[in-house]
Amino acid sequence: MHIMIIGAAGMIGRKLAKKIAETSELGSQTVDCLSLVDIVEPIAPAGFSGELRQGKADVANVSDAAELIAGRPDVIFHLASVVSGEAEQDFDKGYRINLGGMQNLLEAIRSQATGKPYQPRFVFTSSIAVFGTPMPDVIGDEFHLTPQSSYGTQKAICELLLNDYSRKGFIDGVGIRLPTICIRPGAANKAASSFFSGILREPLAGKPAILPVAESVRHWHASPRTAVRFLIHAATMDTGLLGTWRCLNMPGLSATVSEQIEALERVAGPKAVALIRHEPDPDIRALVGSWPRQFAAGRAQELGFEAEQSFDEIIQVYVDEEMGA
Amino acid sequence: MHIMIIGAAGMIGRKLAKKIAETSELGSQTVDCLSLVDIVEPIAPAGFSGELRQGKADVANVSDAAELIAGRPDVIFHLASVVSGEAEQDFDKGYRINLGGMQNLLEAIRSQATGKPYQPRFVFTSSIAVFGTPMPDVIGDEFHLTPQSSYGTQKAICELLLNDYSRKGFIDGVGIRLPTICIRPGAANKAASSFFSGILREPLAGKPAILPVAESVRHWHASPRTAVRFLIHAATMDTGLLGTWRCLNMPGLSATVSEQIEALERVAGPKAVALIRHEPDPDIRALVGSWPRQFAAGRAQELGFEAEQSFDEIIQVYVDEEMGA
Repeated sequence: MHIMIIGAAGMIGRKLAKKIAETSELGSQTVDCLSLVDIVEPIAPAGFSGELRQGKADVANVSDAAELIAGRPDVIFHLASVVSGEAEQDFDKGYRINLGGMQNLLEAIRSQATGKPYQPRFVFTSSIAVFGTPMPDVIGDEFHLTPQSSYGTQKAICELLLNDYSRKGFIDGVGIRLPTICIRPGAANKAASSFFSGILREPLAGKPAILPVAESVRHWHASPRTAVRFLIHAATMDTGLLGTWRCLNMPGLSATVSEQIEALERVAGPKAVALIRHEPDPDIRALVGSWPRQFAAGRAQELGFEAEQSFDEIIQVYVDEEMGA
Repeated sequence: MHIMIIGAAGMIGRKLAKKIAETSELGSQTVDCLSLVDIVEPIAPAGFSGELRQGKADVANVSDAAELIAGRPDVIFHLASVVSGEAEQDFDKGYRINLGGMQNLLEAIRSQATGKPYQPRFVFTSSIAVFGTPMPDVIGDEFHLTPQSSYGTQKAICELLLNDYSRKGFIDGVGIRLPTICIRPGAANKAASSFFSGILREPLAGKPAILPVAESVRHWHASPRTAVRFLIHAATMDTGLLGTWRCLNMPGLSATVSEQIEALERVAGPKAVALIRHEPDPDIRALVGSWPRQFAAGRAQELGFEAEQSFDEIIQVYVDEEMGA
């Protein structure tokens, strides 16, 4: 089987590639070919036994998207996206990449089916940013799409396209609305949610971190390891169980910033906590304030998706995966 | 003030143009210029006191959309659309016109604001086809978008775009989800819902009509006169009351086909009813079966939108407006 990861240079894409390369299997099937694609050259994962293809491509270009799909991958992970803060600042870029990129891929797939049948499993990472205020404290599986950002709007539109192209039989799509991924390794990115990781990651490394919102802010989290598990489950699950609506709220852990900080103190002590500096940022506070705090993700749980149960576990994943040395 | 109706040759567009031309006012403002646009040449309404512009344009062409918006209309009614049955049969055409047309108009408006402020009131006709099964018997104002057709998907995407462009201040948008309009005058069109009008319109004219679904089918209706009233209210209402979600379920009348037929019998007698021939069509039945049957449209009602209370009233509107001679 041929697997393609679009957005393979990103944090989740790298971890997904690494995980697949470790066993050279997806579900119980052997992966003969792994194509890693991003706007920058992706890093090769270790241990892959099949053919590894790596390349640069911009899905916002029709010809790039067509070229990728010409290889007829059996499973496509579409993770490439401009993040929330950047999509809000650069309206054109957000729509061009987040919406235009999706449309180009879907149309390239539909064109591939001319003459010879082609219906790849298409796993798309959506976001809880498809929801916005006013919303209940706990969002159920049937709450309406009400994004309050261009990023959330683009993700919501992509979900609708994924459903329609699946309904028509052009793809076998699954859309997963990821919680905010925490703790993200590496440097802060332009996502407005970046600080949720920063306030743990930086103090764990003995460095100062900025908290731009109040400690009472509640949010919805999952570790990168869990995100990779979600993606692999979405790629291998029986989509016959999904019915006509193929996008799912993923399970996660609902926690306040102060609960995050308490977990940090248990793992790294009060000296780590003291490295967090409160610097309220009205823009970030407004954006984060419009995001969901908790979900009842019953539908995804019934379909076999599982997340962490405590923030101590989430921190432990980071310590295991990123601080091994 | 300059008003533009895109889709002015369609049934609702013609009636809207006629209504505006009668008084040459919208709300309490004088209409100096009325631009009527469609893919075919629109018919000039009688009695308009201002400058009447008529022309052919295809909003699916970027240049056509830009040319329309170059006139900087203060109010734009965007009614142009490929209907449900056609959008389902011709996937490319549906997306090109229903989605691409909306994108072209919104981008043309955004470009117009370069240099000189421009933020027109933009009234968009969405549809109850943005909802699909599984759904409750009565759909509330917060039910999620779950279209089961390409047409419904395109309308749902346009709603998301309308909200985001409004949130960013590029337009002052209002989206209204029209009930099925009944009784449509003239010939049947390619909409799968066409028979809801046909089974009344044809017998009222002494002609046979085909009923492709069971009499127990329940659906959501409003007259063309009410649709025009909705549009004018959407163009003149205080959008500050809408908050961030600018798309509304319109009020309507929930009725079964047998209730429609009973009303027909009261108006035109059993001979008219005898002209209805039952000819089940599995395709139409399946599509209509995935559509909503009733709404609790409290939000729109609070904002001043009002519909008919009985099917007798709906039939009377047709008799008054279309059978005068």
